[in-house]
Amino acid sequence: MEYQGDLYDRPIATGSMLANGSFTLQSPCVPSKIIALWNNFHALGAKLGKAPPAHPLFLIKPTSSLAGPGQPILRPRAYSGKIAYEGELGIVIGKRCKDMPASDAGDCILGYTCVNDVTAGEVLNENADFAQWCRAKSYDTFGCIGPAIADRLDWRSVRVVTRLDGVERQSYPLSDMIFPPVELVSRISHDMTLLPGDVIACGTSLGIGSIKDGATVEVMIDGIGSLVNTLQACPGSTPI
Amino acid sequence: MEYQGDLYDRPIATGSMLANGSFTLQSPCVPSKIIALWNNFHALGAKLGKAPPAHPLFLIKPTSSLAGPGQPILRPRAYSGKIAYEGELGIVIGKRCKDMPASDAGDCILGYTCVNDVTAGEVLNENADFAQWCRAKSYDTFGCIGPAIADRLDWRSVRVVTRLDGVERQSYPLSDMIFPPVELVSRISHDMTLLPGDVIACGTSLGIGSIKDGATVEVMIDGIGSLVNTLQACPGSTPI
Repeated sequence: MEYQGDLYDRPIATGSMLANGSFTLQSPCVPSKIIALWNNFHALGAKLGKAPPAHPLFLIKPTSSLAGPGQPILRPRAYSGKIAYEGELGIVIGKRCKDMPASDAGDCILGYTCVNDVTAGEVLNENADFAQWCRAKSYDTFGCIGPAIADRLDWRSVRVVTRLDGVERQSYPLSDMIFPPVELVSRISHDMTLLPGDVIACGTSLGIGSIKDGATVEVMIDGIGSLVNTLQACPGSTPI
Repeated sequence: MEYQGDLYDRPIATGSMLANGSFTLQSPCVPSKIIALWNNFHALGAKLGKAPPAHPLFLIKPTSSLAGPGQPILRPRAYSGKIAYEGELGIVIGKRCKDMPASDAGDCILGYTCVNDVTAGEVLNENADFAQWCRAKSYDTFGCIGPAIADRLDWRSVRVVTRLDGVERQSYPLSDMIFPPVELVSRISHDMTLLPGDVIACGTSLGIGSIKDGATVEVMIDGIGSLVNTLQACPGSTPI
């Protein structure tokens, strides 16, 4: 179904339908920032021996890290180490949101999408004094988002399923989240103003692993769809 | 002097001059991301007992954290702890920059500005498992930038001077930088695409400290000017 107008301000259906194959999907939104959670699922926290945090723990991925459905994940020219997938639920913000109580935070959510929070694992702990969360997760194309924004998702009843070259590697229930979506939006809106299109990646759970060059990752959430991206080797890469 | 056109694409002088007092300065650029360095000065690294890193260590501050010259720094509603100033040199990117060798990185620099990389100190180490660099530094108005962009600065010969209510608290030479500007731009451009207006805050050195509500911080660099911001208490703040 085709719409016109502003995605964040009551877009209007034109009545026309686009045929499959007549369009290319891009990222369903262009976030000014992607806020990516760490330790937000009980099962992964328990496995890592980490207590549930008192407030959402996050890093920020920039707009330049964005990739849409079907776009390649590009191995950075200067990095030959392991690259990990992390299948996640993404919250898409629908309106400006600042110091919002949890009771009203739901109104700020436009909908939900799939996220692959791609990570250069060996960068993360390369320096003993400073965990390089931002650098490891901010390479161009390491913020995969899509394929759609579902505006009515019963997230409590669905799972995040991640497949690597067709083999299931993650399947975890969203009901295991430590801070659920309205709580995330409310608390993070006390840390910074959230803007239309901003994405909160809710964190991952058990089953993360690495992607070989040429392998394809699918992050699938029932009610949203499948986000599919392939890791592309960097031709003629020259480490600096 | 008034200019028209695109700041990043040969703006044209109109020939007219604006009188002092006839305009209000805003942030001289609107970065899509602010890349803020940690441990980039030998003197501070030595004091903290940290070895110089092999690659720039950084976190990302979002566009929503931006404040211009003269704008108040707003105490977050949910935070009553210490708020620190960090006077820094800011590199302003002039054109799209990706995998740039150091020999060409200078061409990507539009100029230099002053930065106050404001930090909620008690948030940073609140959680023992995860240093909250992004959260502590991303509150609205915690990315103070300005007052101008100097396109010809001999950074090696100048100092960053920070004054708190008129009293000098920092005065350190930029020549003490571990990764100088072209090296920062080159190396970070291998981590992510830098866009026109993006700011790299080069990190701070000795003398950081906290700002009391109502106190004024001035970050001054000869050849750029003075960036002045006052910390404003949050009226009726209600911690969540």
